Amino acid sequence: MTEALAVGIDIGGTKVAGGLVDATGVVVARARRDTPHRSKSPDVVEDTIVEVVSELLAGTQREVVAVGIGAAGFVAADRATVVFAPHLSWRDEPLEANLQRRVPVPISVDNDANAAAWAEWRFGAARGESHMVMVNLGTGIGGAMVLDGQIMRGRFGIAGEFGHMQVVPGGQRCECGNKGCWEQYASGNALVREARSLMTAGSPMATDLLDRVDGEPSALTGPMITEAAREGDPTATELLGEIGQWLGVGIANLAAAFDPGLFVIGGGVSAAGDLLLEPARTTFRRQLTGRGYRPEAAIVGAALGNEAGLIGAADLARSDALARAQSGQA
Amino acid sequence: MTEALAVGIDIGGTKVAGGLVDATGVVVARARRDTPHRSKSPDVVEDTIVEVVSELLAGTQREVVAVGIGAAGFVAADRATVVFAPHLSWRDEPLEANLQRRVPVPISVDNDANAAAWAEWRFGAARGESHMVMVNLGTGIGGAMVLDGQIMRGRFGIAGEFGHMQVVPGGQRCECGNKGCWEQYASGNALVREARSLMTAGSPMATDLLDRVDGEPSALTGPMITEAAREGDPTATELLGEIGQWLGVGIANLAAAFDPGLFVIGGGVSAAGDLLLEPARTTFRRQLTGRGYRPEAAIVGAALGNEAGLIGAADLARSDALARAQSGQA
Repeated sequence: MTEALAVGIDIGGTKVAGGLVDATGVVVARARRDTPHRSKSPDVVEDTIVEVVSELLAGTQREVVAVGIGAAGFVAADRATVVFAPHLSWRDEPLEANLQRRVPVPISVDNDANAAAWAEWRFGAARGESHMVMVNLGTGIGGAMVLDGQIMRGRFGIAGEFGHMQVVPGGQRCECGNKGCWEQYASGNALVREARSLMTAGSPMATDLLDRVDGEPSALTGPMITEAAREGDPTATELLGEIGQWLGVGIANLAAAFDPGLFVIGGGVSAAGDLLLEPARTTFRRQLTGRGYRPEAAIVGAALGNEAGLIGAADLARSDALARAQSGQA
Repeated sequence: MTEALAVGIDIGGTKVAGGLVDATGVVVARARRDTPHRSKSPDVVEDTIVEVVSELLAGTQREVVAVGIGAAGFVAADRATVVFAPHLSWRDEPLEANLQRRVPVPISVDNDANAAAWAEWRFGAARGESHMVMVNLGTGIGGAMVLDGQIMRGRFGIAGEFGHMQVVPGGQRCECGNKGCWEQYASGNALVREARSLMTAGSPMATDLLDRVDGEPSALTGPMITEAAREGDPTATELLGEIGQWLGVGIANLAAAFDPGLFVIGGGVSAAGDLLLEPARTTFRRQLTGRGYRPEAAIVGAALGNEAGLIGAADLARSDALARAQSGQA
């Protein structure tokens, strides 16, 4: 079975990305589609997934033992049902059963952040670490934990929603309905919001950023800010630094609760590397309770980039298939 | 071995409480001493523990298979060393080895909050729950998690320091050195601080509380506030309600991260019962991310009172002894 491949599918708000993944975590083929808008019916999203899987299966002569789905949403503890997916049209969607009827290979479903953390633990930045916490900074903040080689999914399957821990009472309104959620201060959306606000206020600090978008704040994106910081713009560097500081505050909170050995920072914003991570580490060290009297977790960037989700989904599905084979159910 | 007893010792900042505990969690005998002041040498604290253990061992004819120590401090992941105990004189103290030289029964060491959570899971409010989080409101906030029948100790043994998660940026100074820690808003110390501040400000709202201490705010204690609330004083009820609201905020944060099925609230302040827990539940329900789209954890009071620590320490030590016997090392 180590020669065989597994399909991994990462379903995000904008893209359905798929890959054929070997037993060492290498992606040997890829396919992708746009995610149907959330106004579309659940069937349309499932059609898109089946298209991507079928394209990948048709493109290889090698055995494919499992298909893993990593979905951006609340996946129930039974890993069969998507309870709620804010960016998709799913509500109590029996995703595993629906897909299994249409795909001739065993399906495994998990949350996308769980899949990414698993990939980093198996093949990436967290290999060999007994207690790892992954924090993904995208438009929001997702996360997951791998403890003693097991994903910690929680009682209802919804653990790791770190982005909605409140860090500022009465703070910025969050799309989850609450105020002051961590992801309002340390995500890609927060980075862009703060930069645009500086541009709109007419601050001379924003000149470089304004030049990059021909004076149109709404055209600014997170990657542009990272690029400006890399090229030496002090304002962009400061904005990333602020995001990094809030990242450090939240990580210190998670360290107080979980006490992991390693934090892995993934997601689009983590492409900023040490422009983000150094301020995070500095704040973490200043904020950690018991500092000086305890060992401290390391904070590192993710190693697998934006393919972590599909690599992890494939490997989790492969593990499930192996477990079934060993228990004689396959 | 089910007929045999185990000794449990709970070492807090003020008392060393010990008990002989049977296999069903019943305490059949007790002993206690004052905790030596932290200015005393580590030897003095250990002398006190040995005294309590000796008194308990001398007082029974039944077999005693293990001695469990629950200590208020950072216990290393190896469960042999107390890394740091703010209220005691220990720093990198090899507690297990030091005590084992002086006690003729196998010693097991753990953190006091871990011991209390274990007791509630085995014999108390969390029986049968696969994912439980315990939050202890004493002078500060301690905590622990039991997941799938295992205490989640973290990479370095220091998980569960919930009280030092920051809930208010730049908020109340905490004795840990940080500002805005949860335990500055939802502990016994916070309750008393707020009540005294109301009394000192001369508010007519504080009349009932002032009468209870003959006009001397410094004489007020947490239990007096609970008593006043039980007797109908609206100010005391409001003060407990505020603590309960902050408890709910922090629990919602923990639910976002851990997604447990049950929160058990212990510690001295939890004696206030629903005066504390109802405001906590209301705030939790309003604050939980994804509310309405997910199952929600229950919040209940602890069942074992202030003996949870020693009961859990004894039972953990008994489990360790059983594991050693089964693996042939005993």
